[in-house]
Order: sequence, then C-alpha cells, then structure tokens
Amino acid sequence: MNRIITIGREFGSGGREMGRRLAEELGIAYYDQEIVKELLKRTKLTEEYVRNVEERNPLPLLPITTARTFGLKVTPKVELALSVYNQESDIIMEMAKKSDCIIVGRCADHILRDMRPFRLFVYADMEARIARCRAKGEDAARMSDEDLRQRILSIDKKRARYYQFYTDQVWGDKINYDLCINTSAVNIKKLAGITASLIRER
Amino acid sequence: MNRIITIGREFGSGGREMGRRLAEELGIAYYDQEIVKELLKRTKLTEEYVRNVEERNPLPLLPITTARTFGLKVTPKVELALSVYNQESDIIMEMAKKSDCIIVGRCADHILRDMRPFRLFVYADMEARIARCRAKGEDAARMSDEDLRQRILSIDKKRARYYQFYTDQVWGDKINYDLCINTSAVNIKKLAGITASLIRER
Repeated sequence: MNRIITIGREFGSGGREMGRRLAEELGIAYYDQEIVKELLKRTKLTEEYVRNVEERNPLPLLPITTARTFGLKVTPKVELALSVYNQESDIIMEMAKKSDCIIVGRCADHILRDMRPFRLFVYADMEARIARCRAKGEDAARMSDEDLRQRILSIDKKRARYYQFYTDQVWGDKINYDLCINTSAVNIKKLAGITASLIRER
Repeated sequence: MNRIITIGREFGSGGREMGRRLAEELGIAYYDQEIVKELLKRTKLTEEYVRNVEERNPLPLLPITTARTFGLKVTPKVELALSVYNQESDIIMEMAKKSDCIIVGRCADHILRDMRPFRLFVYADMEARIARCRAKGEDAARMSDEDLRQRILSIDKKRARYYQFYTDQVWGDKINYDLCINTSAVNIKKLAGITASLIRER
C-alpha cells in the first residue's frame, strides 16, 4: 500500500509549507490545488463555483450522515455540493492509489481512512499566525491585526464546518490525527525533516 | 536556561514510558514520583493524603484564579490543597533550575511557563489504551474492557479537573502544547528517539 500523508491545518499555521517540505524530504507527490484543477478538467464547473462549495457546508447544522439518517430533505443545491465533494473524493482516491503522496485538506484523512494514512495536523497560536500572514504578504499589509485575526478565525470556522459536515468528526480534535504540531516557535524546514523521519519509522 | 520538557498524558497512553525514554535519549533527569517523594520529605503529610489532593480539585466548578477574583470563600480544606500544590510547584521549580529535565504531569507546563519548556502531550485511542493497561498487568487482568474504559475515563477526568483548576486552561487542548503525539499505532521507543531530535533542534 502506498505511503499516504494527509495534512489538516489551521489557516496561517504553515501547514502548506510543511506539506511541500515534507514532500521534498520524502521525495513524494504533493497535492493541494492540484485536486481542484483536476476537478475543473473533468467537469464544466468554474473555479469560483468549486471554491464556493469548498467554503460552505450546505446544511449548516447537521453532518450529512445524520441528515440522511433522519430523512431530511436534500435540496438540489445540497446535491450539487455533495457531487463536488464526491468527485473530489474520487480524485483524491485515485491520487492515493497512484503513488506515495501528501494531500492537504479536503477531508483526505477521512476519505482515505482505509489506506491508513499518516494524519498530520498543523496549528499555531494566533500571534504566530498573524505574523505568518504578514510575512506572506498578500492582503495582510492593508489589514489591522484585529482584522487579520477575524479573517483567520472565519476561515478556520469554514474549514471546521466543512470537515464536520462530511466526516461527522471534529476538525482539529487531536484524536483524529497521529501527530499535531504547533509551529509557533519552530522553523518549519527543520520540523519537516524530523517529521519525515517519524513517518519513515512508522 | 536549562532545557525543560513537560509531559501531559492521557492515562494508558504511554506518556510515562515516553518520558523515561526521552530522558535516556537526551541524557537528562526525569521527575515524576520523585516530586511527591520530595514533598513527603519536606512535610509531615502522608503519601495517601498527597495522592488524594492530587486527584481532587477542591472547588469542582471554578478555577482557583476565578474563585479568588470573585472573592469566593476559600475553606481550610481548599487552603491545604493549595498549600500542597504550591509546595509541589516550588519543588518543580527547583528541579527545573538545577539541570535539564523532564517533568511528568502536575501542571509543570504552566508552573514553568516562564522557562519556555517544550510541552509534550501524549494520547492514544481507547482501544490502544486498554491494550496498554492489560500489557502492564496490575489490576487490569481482573477487569472487563468496559470496566477498564470507565477507569481510564475517570482518571482522565480527574487529571483534566486538576489541570483546569490550577491553570485555568483546558487539559489536552493542543494549543497548550508544542507537540501532541498519538501513540496508538507506533513504537514508543522509536517515537522517543525522533522526538528527542525534534527537541534538540528547537
């Protein structure tokens, strides 16, 4: 079975950098935006539409399994969202079957659970996340610390809802992961090297 | 400043083994029961009394800081418990100042926060924890899986309350730690070797 590593990450914690560096260390494939690109190739959906679906859960209060158990009405909008999720899941599954790889986000830990992936969660304290957003540039320069904080919390909230909706598990709850790394006070490059040793030993 | 590692751990997750092996790997002191022994030497308290205090928080619903802020009456029983906690804190502080060391439990991450310890939390899924209790022997052989599960949950609940009472933080919440390791599927000896590299890199 291929060696699969899934990464969940708080916004601004360096999870994506961790993923890229881990992939380099281990010499394996790295998938993140590639999943969306592949989905766009296979469907007539626009990138904007897919991003929108990824950021919202269509039934805010219930995980999809519960909604189905209780026979709640699934609207066409929900069906479309589910269809995007299912197609992404198929792509993720194909990638995982093709070769060793790292997959960032998108409930890959849950989708690939039968392949026993190494499930990593990357997080950091708010101060470090604000500093990381500023270092990366983008819109951060124009925002106050408080605005950045609100933005970070809002993105995390969407990630948590999306994850809970499709997996019926709590996003970021350590029991769903093999390793949770706080990047606040450490150099991610070094961290990636050591995490790679840990994964190799498993 | 000395290199200090604090370990929080779910019952049955192998946190103590992790601590011992880490201490061996790093060639530094290891403190766990030693803290109680030192306390008994310094006071007229019995071991039973100290264990009892360590397992109960004297004001079940409020952390001590909140209770004081709101001027709640602190009974003699509470004062005695606080006195034990304070004396243990002094001992922990002395140990941390003496040399590099690993300290298991007893809110050491909070007590030593100004020394910027590396804060490790060790956990595992219930199945692995039950198996570990059985492998260690003790009373486990006479208990059903369900009884063991209840015992594990009850000890964790006490640890969580004790921690929350004295630190006003949530026990096991990953934001309070630098690294959270799930020991369910891994050999702790190997894990300790790699965690030691990570601590050395910091």
